[in-house]
Amino acid sequence: MTSRLLLHSFFRSSTSFRVRAALAAKELEFDQETYNFRENAQRSENYLKRNPQGLVPTLTLQDGEDIHQSLAILEWLEEKHPHPPLLPADASGRARVRSLAHTIALDIHPINNLRVLNRLREQFGADDEQVKTWFLHWISLGFEAFETRLANEADTGKFCHGDSLSMADICLVAQSVNNQRFGFDETPFPTIRNIVERCLQIPAFQSAMPSAQPDAV
Amino acid sequence: MTSRLLLHSFFRSSTSFRVRAALAAKELEFDQETYNFRENAQRSENYLKRNPQGLVPTLTLQDGEDIHQSLAILEWLEEKHPHPPLLPADASGRARVRSLAHTIALDIHPINNLRVLNRLREQFGADDEQVKTWFLHWISLGFEAFETRLANEADTGKFCHGDSLSMADICLVAQSVNNQRFGFDETPFPTIRNIVERCLQIPAFQSAMPSAQPDAV
Repeated sequence: MTSRLLLHSFFRSSTSFRVRAALAAKELEFDQETYNFRENAQRSENYLKRNPQGLVPTLTLQDGEDIHQSLAILEWLEEKHPHPPLLPADASGRARVRSLAHTIALDIHPINNLRVLNRLREQFGADDEQVKTWFLHWISLGFEAFETRLANEADTGKFCHGDSLSMADICLVAQSVNNQRFGFDETPFPTIRNIVERCLQIPAFQSAMPSAQPDAV
Repeated sequence: MTSRLLLHSFFRSSTSFRVRAALAAKELEFDQETYNFRENAQRSENYLKRNPQGLVPTLTLQDGEDIHQSLAILEWLEEKHPHPPLLPADASGRARVRSLAHTIALDIHPINNLRVLNRLREQFGADDEQVKTWFLHWISLGFEAFETRLANEADTGKFCHGDSLSMADICLVAQSVNNQRFGFDETPFPTIRNIVERCLQIPAFQSAMPSAQPDAV
């Protein structure tokens, strides 16, 4: 038994960002064990015992139980620590928030994360420019659809869903921060930009930023 | 208002399979509107109005509301039609089931779906053999981790979690069916094979198979 939650993470990991932001939004204290991806530390024998995928994040609970997968962690947090909520109270609203979050988490991020970009280099000899083209292709497709939904759907408010923070905002901001590394121009997406800017004023997001982490370089 | 749920789908789509299986497991009647991916019908002007991502599935409810994203649909079904459940009753079990489901739905399937494989051909001139190598790489990585978890974790039973069907089984079987198209050898994964074989005896999965759909060719 330990007294605090332990998050296994990497400062640049967008999925770790999601969990850091959710923990902070819910005012839960946690420690971090960080893994240097440049040294492949997430695939060390010890960590693979904890998480056979060799991916971050994992959240270790006080009783030693490990929860894998960022969105499964967010759902668990929502069930065990419901205040402040990161999902609306109604099933229809929850479906909308999850579908927005999943647009980022299933249809943008997995195709563009570090291991996939590295695989493009290894299997196809992709250079930096080709990797960037790949990244920007999927971001553009995803953000165009995301912006269209936000701009046209009545439930959009100050945040992705109404005027309260939700899992959709968390996934969106984590991706937007990631996009900066490839110089993606978000000016064609004014509704997204507006929401991201608003979120970045919130301490929970500020504390989740890559540059604020102990392993930042 | 219509009397039945309407699923927008494509027979070969693994994400459509998930929703078909969940609807059938919950004994909910539904109609299907199918989209011919070879003709890019999912990106027609009409469907893009309904789903700006131009992806299937979308579930249209009786009141006309559209729900996007297969896992968001599964969570909605679970909330509105909880019996039989596709998530365990305890938060810890739900986290385990979601983390297994997400291993397939976030870390395997998105990197290997049709639009990504097509993009490899377009951007890198990948041929059939290179596309197959890409597919098998991500499947192997994901299934090795999935098998390790199932084989080592005490909560594994006749199905991925205990002796009841869950979202984890649905995502697993949908992926396994997909794998057959690339001749992926699943014999190194006996726990997975055992569960998939058991699921394939269940009418809900049989009715969800690509070959059982109205648009199958």
